[in-house]
Amino acid sequence: MDMIDIILDKRYGRKLTDEQIAYFVKGATDGSIPDYQLSSFLMAVVLNGMDEHEMTSLTLAMARSGDINDLSYVDGIPVDKHSTGGVGDKITPILIPLLASFGVTTVKLSGRGLGHTGGTVDKFESIRGFNAEIPFDKIRDMVKASGMFISGQTPNLAPADKVLYSLRDVTGTVDSIPLIASSIMSKKIAGGAKALVLDVTCGSGAYMKTEERARELAEAMIKIGKLAGIDTCCVITDMDQPLGRCVGNTLEMQEVYEVLTGRGSDDVIQIVTTIASKLITMASKDNGMNEEELKAECAARLKDGRALSHYVELVLSQGGSVNSNGSPLYVEYPFESMYVTSPESGYITRIRADIIGKASVMLGAGRLSKDDTIDHGAGICFYAKVGDKVKRGDRLCSLCIGENSKLPDEVLYDVMDLVHEAYEYSDSAPEKSSVIIDVLS
Amino acid sequence: MDMIDIILDKRYGRKLTDEQIAYFVKGATDGSIPDYQLSSFLMAVVLNGMDEHEMTSLTLAMARSGDINDLSYVDGIPVDKHSTGGVGDKITPILIPLLASFGVTTVKLSGRGLGHTGGTVDKFESIRGFNAEIPFDKIRDMVKASGMFISGQTPNLAPADKVLYSLRDVTGTVDSIPLIASSIMSKKIAGGAKALVLDVTCGSGAYMKTEERARELAEAMIKIGKLAGIDTCCVITDMDQPLGRCVGNTLEMQEVYEVLTGRGSDDVIQIVTTIASKLITMASKDNGMNEEELKAECAARLKDGRALSHYVELVLSQGGSVNSNGSPLYVEYPFESMYVTSPESGYITRIRADIIGKASVMLGAGRLSKDDTIDHGAGICFYAKVGDKVKRGDRLCSLCIGENSKLPDEVLYDVMDLVHEAYEYSDSAPEKSSVIIDVLS
Repeated sequence: MDMIDIILDKRYGRKLTDEQIAYFVKGATDGSIPDYQLSSFLMAVVLNGMDEHEMTSLTLAMARSGDINDLSYVDGIPVDKHSTGGVGDKITPILIPLLASFGVTTVKLSGRGLGHTGGTVDKFESIRGFNAEIPFDKIRDMVKASGMFISGQTPNLAPADKVLYSLRDVTGTVDSIPLIASSIMSKKIAGGAKALVLDVTCGSGAYMKTEERARELAEAMIKIGKLAGIDTCCVITDMDQPLGRCVGNTLEMQEVYEVLTGRGSDDVIQIVTTIASKLITMASKDNGMNEEELKAECAARLKDGRALSHYVELVLSQGGSVNSNGSPLYVEYPFESMYVTSPESGYITRIRADIIGKASVMLGAGRLSKDDTIDHGAGICFYAKVGDKVKRGDRLCSLCIGENSKLPDEVLYDVMDLVHEAYEYSDSAPEKSSVIIDVLS
Repeated sequence: MDMIDIILDKRYGRKLTDEQIAYFVKGATDGSIPDYQLSSFLMAVVLNGMDEHEMTSLTLAMARSGDINDLSYVDGIPVDKHSTGGVGDKITPILIPLLASFGVTTVKLSGRGLGHTGGTVDKFESIRGFNAEIPFDKIRDMVKASGMFISGQTPNLAPADKVLYSLRDVTGTVDSIPLIASSIMSKKIAGGAKALVLDVTCGSGAYMKTEERARELAEAMIKIGKLAGIDTCCVITDMDQPLGRCVGNTLEMQEVYEVLTGRGSDDVIQIVTTIASKLITMASKDNGMNEEELKAECAARLKDGRALSHYVELVLSQGGSVNSNGSPLYVEYPFESMYVTSPESGYITRIRADIIGKASVMLGAGRLSKDDTIDHGAGICFYAKVGDKVKRGDRLCSLCIGENSKLPDEVLYDVMDLVHEAYEYSDSAPEKSSVIIDVLS
């Protein structure tokens, strides 16, 4: 087999065979196919696409390029959840203990944040003592004990995807439904879960800017799941404004605690209970409840402390500190160092989440490059969100930094300008829309 | 400026600016843009195309990436001719002296052959003593003396094209009108000619397999010529069977001598006189003759020895040997070692030139890799061509090798099988068609 012929087949829009795709993935993983051939092939895929069989073949070949996480010891059906990225997305730390309260096991292998979206591991690490670097061979005991596990230490999962992802990043070949779908699904399949809910975000703060593209991606991943034998469901959610009340590591974990003590904002609760009810059903732990009943039961468990007790168990099992009422202690506490006020009067119609993400990174909450250190206390708290009516001079949000932050004042003023750019206004109230756009399976 | 943005602009089908194209060409030439970015960009161009302004901008940037050959000392308008490649194509050695007889100066910088099409320099080197490696700084004196010059020693012309061409070869990005057109035109513009006829071949033995693709390429090059200020004309010729009576180095030079002594085959004479009359007109040496008159005058000069005397001058000026009647002496004489006879009776409808080219290379007439040595005596002589009626057992052609060739007999039998594959037959006579399909300018 010859890589040039494979490139030419895709260049002329022909369908690739499983053998051709396996050859390409093997060569990408072991380095025997040079970068310049990988990248011209990737661009041909970007422009000529792949059908569902090719995407599935690519997904499975990438999943098999490294270790496959064996979760056969789990009692029942292990589940996983993935978000295509959002700003203020604190769903996972709420979802895992909520699922555990139903006896559903989640093994979450999470990345650290890069760019304008934060990483779940970074958020957990804002809890004092929390160890997200637990060696992978301990996973079995911990999962058996609590049904929960969160780690930033991933084994050699889908190494082909790592090679291709870093190449796509520098060759203008990121934006492609087959490549994005197979990248996500290969890691999930290698991760070992048998049931999967994908939170496909859309809007300014998401990877998919439009609902149409989000639907395309969701449909592609559902097709791959079906052909690969993984029970897959997609929830399309609105990421045109940041999710919940704040953005930042400690800030979001404080919000997680609020949700787990019955004081969460509606958008976060909607997403968590929708995803949870799906996964509970897929894991056959629904006890005969229909979807609405399950969602109500999930909301009840967020209110009455049943989910919280599992959260405390998770935090303690990975070395984190909590005080007597179950509230974690943090490595750095947020300090509201500047209020941003509204420059005009009217209804807020949009808060561009991508800009808020950038602003938050400037405050120190995220990384621009892998080696940057982060200020766990930094972030933004919202006082006014889409649909709210404000007068000129009203508080829109506050800019927070950690107690030990040495951020120069000029940066705060630059961030304020950015935040002003993110907020959009109108004289009339915008139509109310649900944060859940659709559920596909 | 950032290469990723340039790739993305082309990936989304946007038009590139001159500055973007210049940045890309500079980075390709000096190696500052990595191969994997060049190749994903090339694939985006292959699939999303370029408009005439982008093609011209790319052509000029590539032409300017190295030396520009200054022909301002030439008396009149220096002309050039280029063929997109054919099998049995011996037009150049006839054309140059024919043009010189009209006072038209041609400086021909030619490549050596690679693959199934032969190179003009290889053909001239089958003449004993002929030096095609004359240093480029001698060109001025030689051109001033004879108005002719042929060299395989090219200066640093369009180095960007060399980089991109070798990368396209291994990344499945060869077949693209904008990339082919800009590659050809950049070298011609750097070569210094002010008027240009391009012989765009089409058919089985050509780069462009269909007339439609040949027209597309011709139109693209004419547009580039117009925008770049080079008077450009394209002749579309049929390369569905080999051109003339034979294929091979000495064999073709012997055929050149036949044409120059009034015994040429009609297809060769048609192409030579058409291209010559165009270039003579473009160089303003037509002395008031119209195209038909000029073609007749060209044919006359091939018959009466006026073109031959310039040919002898060219051969002698570059060190070649001729005998007393002007016929060159050759480094290796062809020896007819096997006749291929027809396996059936009927009219010959096609002789697949690509297969004949391969067969000729197998006999030793060409190179498969740069370092292969060639047998100047090897090649194929045709006794029957398209339109001829043959009976089973009639001679189709002979396979020739040089007197000193050590080619094993098995290879001759393999070549015979290939040649049988190349010939196609029918019970009825095929329609007569001209070798000149169209002339565009």
